Amino acid sequence: MIRVGVIGAIGYAGRELIRILGIHPQAELTAAIELEAGKHVGEVMPALNKTADVVLETFDAQQLAKKCDAVFMALHGGIAMDLIPPLREAGVKVIDMGPDFRLKNTSAFKQYYGMDHRAADLLDEAVYGLAPYYRDALANTSLVAVPGCYVMSVLFPLRPLVDGISREFPVIVDAISGVSGAGRSLHEIFHFPEMNENVRAYKLGIHQHTPEIEQELGGEVMVQFTPHVGPYTRGILSTITLRPLESLDVAACYERYANEPFLRVLGEGKLAEVRYVRGSNFCDFGWVMDKRTGNLIIVSAIDNLFGGTAGMAVQCMNIMFGLDETAGLSFGGMAP
Amino acid sequence: MIRVGVIGAIGYAGRELIRILGIHPQAELTAAIELEAGKHVGEVMPALNKTADVVLETFDAQQLAKKCDAVFMALHGGIAMDLIPPLREAGVKVIDMGPDFRLKNTSAFKQYYGMDHRAADLLDEAVYGLAPYYRDALANTSLVAVPGCYVMSVLFPLRPLVDGISREFPVIVDAISGVSGAGRSLHEIFHFPEMNENVRAYKLGIHQHTPEIEQELGGEVMVQFTPHVGPYTRGILSTITLRPLESLDVAACYERYANEPFLRVLGEGKLAEVRYVRGSNFCDFGWVMDKRTGNLIIVSAIDNLFGGTAGMAVQCMNIMFGLDETAGLSFGGMAP
Amino acid sequence: MIRVGVIGAIGYAGRELIRILGIHPQAELTAAIELEAGKHVGEVMPALNKTADVVLETFDAQQLAKKCDAVFMALHGGIAMDLIPPLREAGVKVIDMGPDFRLKNTSAFKQYYGMDHRAADLLDEAVYGLAPYYRDALANTSLVAVPGCYVMSVLFPLRPLVDGISREFPVIVDAISGVSGAGRSLHEIFHFPEMNENVRAYKLGIHQHTPEIEQELGGEVMVQFTPHVGPYTRGILSTITLRPLESLDVAACYERYANEPFLRVLGEGKLAEVRYVRGSNFCDFGWVMDKRTGNLIIVSAIDNLFGGTAGMAVQCMNIMFGLDETAGLSFGGMAP
Amino acid sequence: MIRVGVIGAIGYAGRELIRILGIHPQAELTAAIELEAGKHVGEVMPALNKTADVVLETFDAQQLAKKCDAVFMALHGGIAMDLIPPLREAGVKVIDMGPDFRLKNTSAFKQYYGMDHRAADLLDEAVYGLAPYYRDALANTSLVAVPGCYVMSVLFPLRPLVDGISREFPVIVDAISGVSGAGRSLHEIFHFPEMNENVRAYKLGIHQHTPEIEQELGGEVMVQFTPHVGPYTRGILSTITLRPLESLDVAACYERYANEPFLRVLGEGKLAEVRYVRGSNFCDFGWVMDKRTGNLIIVSAIDNLFGGTAGMAVQCMNIMFGLDETAGLSFGGMAP
Repeated sequence: MIRVGVIGAIGYAGRELIRILGIHPQAELTAAIELEAGKHVGEVMPALNKTADVVLETFDAQQLAKKCDAVFMALHGGIAMDLIPPLREAGVKVIDMGPDFRLKNTSAFKQYYGMDHRAADLLDEAVYGLAPYYRDALANTSLVAVPGCYVMSVLFPLRPLVDGISREFPVIVDAISGVSGAGRSLHEIFHFPEMNENVRAYKLGIHQHTPEIEQELGGEVMVQFTPHVGPYTRGILSTITLRPLESLDVAACYERYANEPFLRVLGEGKLAEVRYVRGSNFCDFGWVMDKRTGNLIIVSAIDNLFGGTAGMAVQCMNIMFGLDETAGLSFGGMAP
Repeated sequence: MIRVGVIGAIGYAGRELIRILGIHPQAELTAAIELEAGKHVGEVMPALNKTADVVLETFDAQQLAKKCDAVFMALHGGIAMDLIPPLREAGVKVIDMGPDFRLKNTSAFKQYYGMDHRAADLLDEAVYGLAPYYRDALANTSLVAVPGCYVMSVLFPLRPLVDGISREFPVIVDAISGVSGAGRSLHEIFHFPEMNENVRAYKLGIHQHTPEIEQELGGEVMVQFTPHVGPYTRGILSTITLRPLESLDVAACYERYANEPFLRVLGEGKLAEVRYVRGSNFCDFGWVMDKRTGNLIIVSAIDNLFGGTAGMAVQCMNIMFGLDETAGLSFGGMAP
Repeated sequence: MIRVGVIGAIGYAGRELIRILGIHPQAELTAAIELEAGKHVGEVMPALNKTADVVLETFDAQQLAKKCDAVFMALHGGIAMDLIPPLREAGVKVIDMGPDFRLKNTSAFKQYYGMDHRAADLLDEAVYGLAPYYRDALANTSLVAVPGCYVMSVLFPLRPLVDGISREFPVIVDAISGVSGAGRSLHEIFHFPEMNENVRAYKLGIHQHTPEIEQELGGEVMVQFTPHVGPYTRGILSTITLRPLESLDVAACYERYANEPFLRVLGEGKLAEVRYVRGSNFCDFGWVMDKRTGNLIIVSAIDNLFGGTAGMAVQCMNIMFGLDETAGLSFGGMAP
Repeated sequence: MIRVGVIGAIGYAGRELIRILGIHPQAELTAAIELEAGKHVGEVMPALNKTADVVLETFDAQQLAKKCDAVFMALHGGIAMDLIPPLREAGVKVIDMGPDFRLKNTSAFKQYYGMDHRAADLLDEAVYGLAPYYRDALANTSLVAVPGCYVMSVLFPLRPLVDGISREFPVIVDAISGVSGAGRSLHEIFHFPEMNENVRAYKLGIHQHTPEIEQELGGEVMVQFTPHVGPYTRGILSTITLRPLESLDVAACYERYANEPFLRVLGEGKLAEVRYVRGSNFCDFGWVMDKRTGNLIIVSAIDNLFGGTAGMAVQCMNIMFGLDETAGLSFGGMAP
């Protein structure tokens, strides 16, 4: 059994990770770090009671190293970069579900996250945890940066097409997320009577997932990313509009995904829906070519907490430790 | 008192119209036409009981003319075009909330609605019911075609800018509607456990509001319109991405709306939300100029049933009959 | 025009009141008191912009008296009792939507609200604003205590039956409210991802509406009131289970409601639903007699913000000022 | 590996079963029976694609027996009773998630389900699948009747107390379910714009779970069961009001559950919520004793599709086949 610790246990990403570990046949939760140290996880998170059995504790790299083979970081930007170096010195493998090691470019990091990077020496070593693209590197690393949730919903369909996209037009990504993507911090906009029956856009032109998408598309495509939030809990739907080169054969580009366990290519004329991926590790997508306008429109769906965060993190762990890549993850979507 | 009839009384647009008439100081419901003739409106629509007091009847143009000064049509495409000519002969003014008289181009009508137009001779006479643009014509017509709900959410912000939009790029409109926009017909996708917590796109490249938007933008702008439906009942949020000419002064273009009673121009950096327009006749919008990409992104909101259909229809009626244009419509948004 | 002020303008009850005033033909908002004094109401509450046009100000009884014929209080318990005496001295009629003057028994007030009553001398004068039962008193008072939202949903169906209810059994009221009933204060339980798809009960045995229901039933019936909150914004559904005396003729008891403008007695075997009263001033109810068990079960519905608070408050104002009792309130339910 | 078939594969209970089997370490789906025979399960249920890999087929007891050790029935009442006898003759163990073998009394069956029982000879043999109470019998049977979803939410808290409940008062159960409890058949009331933001009660006094609850409480307690449906997908909250005998020691009665893997006794003053059990096999409950009224109020929660149907069915299978009782079921609640 792989012994797993989680830092930031009671955030939504941390909870989802612990929930998956409850069913994982080869990994078990052995430590949970949170500010509310001293309480049992089941007291703080009643939903997880009787499935996880550790007491929340404060961060101590040496102690964690004794109890854990792998530690997952489920933290806001700017914290993990200080905690990861001592963890690695103590010999623990780290899977960071936060943003600190996703961007290779430190000036882009500063621009979008508003702070200097304090562990830039690790950026080369950190493997970008997009499993279908970095399997070999994942198998040989001790530091993984799990991609952003929106980013995965965009990269899975877009990356195979990158050579067939016109550079003269921007790629327009309008995406909508369930509210869990905003985390558990209280805010007027997420108060139920305000958010229920509401839809809004936010962070136009300045969302931090923009440079991450552009980085992983090779830096050649300009992306206009507009995120929205809608009145539901889980799931991202991304609608991607682009101008293809005439030579682009979309279906052929996706053949590389035929054996991916968690990518479901729906095909032309078929569109992904949130309901089919909720509570699962899948990313679904399909597309339509509009001959009248010359635009290709792709619609993809992912569960922001599962496939878009904790599930991909576990998939990376499975690869790092040589386990069955799908261990603990082989759910279908929870529909209904 | 203006005596009002409604044809298609129990569809969602018809219901909303009757609801507004309940509070309208100068108009009253005097006739309601529906297939379930013989039942009281309050029996078929319990929500409206004690506020509307007519018995549903079958269509008879002569009878309607005796009871009504104005008749609203709340029907699917292809029915009103047969009923309107006899109504007009009988001397009734008609406000059509359906699509039959919106498109001036009959071949576009055939392409998008899948049928020939059988009353094309009326198309010249029909006034497009976008009140801020056609007030004089509305005051002097007896036939109004109320615009589509998505269309209004796009035209209000876009039409003043049309001369400042680059023709080399398409205008990308990703819009999301509450489920009431799909009407009351049962369908698997709108069964609560399927639609709840779901988001989906539909009719990519073929939605019938596309040519209507392009028509009212003067036919010079190519629009890529992608509608979505989300897990809520009312309201449209439209996100419009376009490439402006350098000369475009957005705020100046919107000065023409300063005295519009139901348009709320939020300004730069402010974004519309569904919650603020729900249950009202308002269309709100704001915008962001992304200097990095050169794109302008506008976000607008409207209640698809109220401001996007029945409210605009009543506003048109008020103009046609010389009433206070805001009569019966002066609600704020129902938030929460 | 009746000139109206509201104290506590930006709470949910205050917002709903201002929304109704937007359409009221004989009343207009002239003053709004709130902590955020100095801002325009439309800035603080964008949904109401262009329908209300006052600037928020701080409380000053003399100033309010100059501008207002009536003042509505939309405050938590314990505040209005200090503000109302100076307002009345200044000659303003007061309609209190909060709880301070509902309970005639000051020891019950202390028990359920946790504080002493500081204006007990006004309790005799305050008229309980349950319009169908206190019309004459309302027409002649200058101080109204609008009932609690749950209370109205229970009293309308229950009060006519009170002589036919067995005293040996408690009356069981299990009621569920939309989240707007909890107001706009942020709390973990009402954070969207926590409340969405959730149902919970609260305040078992200690909810402050219990003594109010018992008071208005004449103090002879023991009520077990269990409130719940569900994942929606507006509306209360109350399920009332009681043991009737054999002599009880339910339908006959409700004949007194035949001419009530806002009570809809659905009859035996018909059950109220939240969807039919949402956004309206109606209270609907119906019932089932279970012969197997000997129990009568009544199901009633009301919109907690409209019919259950602000709508009833306006109805009281209409009576106080001799206006048409239904002025500004004649909406049907917003369904959908 | 236990080879599992499911009859009624595409109903909501069948889907949930297949979803659980996707992660079950010792059981796999080998056959799925449905009317739409010939299609792949992933085509009909896109959410389950790549996790289940069988083609839907028509019912053939002999064929099923070759492929399956156990068959789950996920059917409306009245169908399973005809299919189970041939299945058992063919040597298959049957777990019936439908109602046909829950009631031991055939006249109650006829009264509540409106049909004669056609396999009454099997009723003695059928083990009632309430795992904590019938483990030994489950280990030795080949026919299980999984309890109703509401029933489990009531029996888990109520059965240990039965000797301490006054017989002079009815037990009042007001329960609310998410819409998935109504299944996938389309109906106006479950059309999204009608059900969203709505709550309603139904089947007052006649719901078929009433006699099942009374049966499993030993036939001595009169239950007034009033089910409701609310605007969410999954989960039941049951509020149970009863008059306890003075001698009742609630906490002591629940000590028997200390080692139950899927029952979480929250204790006095703590109330269950749907959010903590969603997507899990748990039933949570807590209680309040109201000294003023003398009533005990219990609030319990269960996921109607998981813990309330498919999860309990799998738990029964695990017991029948001598597997770890929690295999495939050890998730925490999906919150959020």
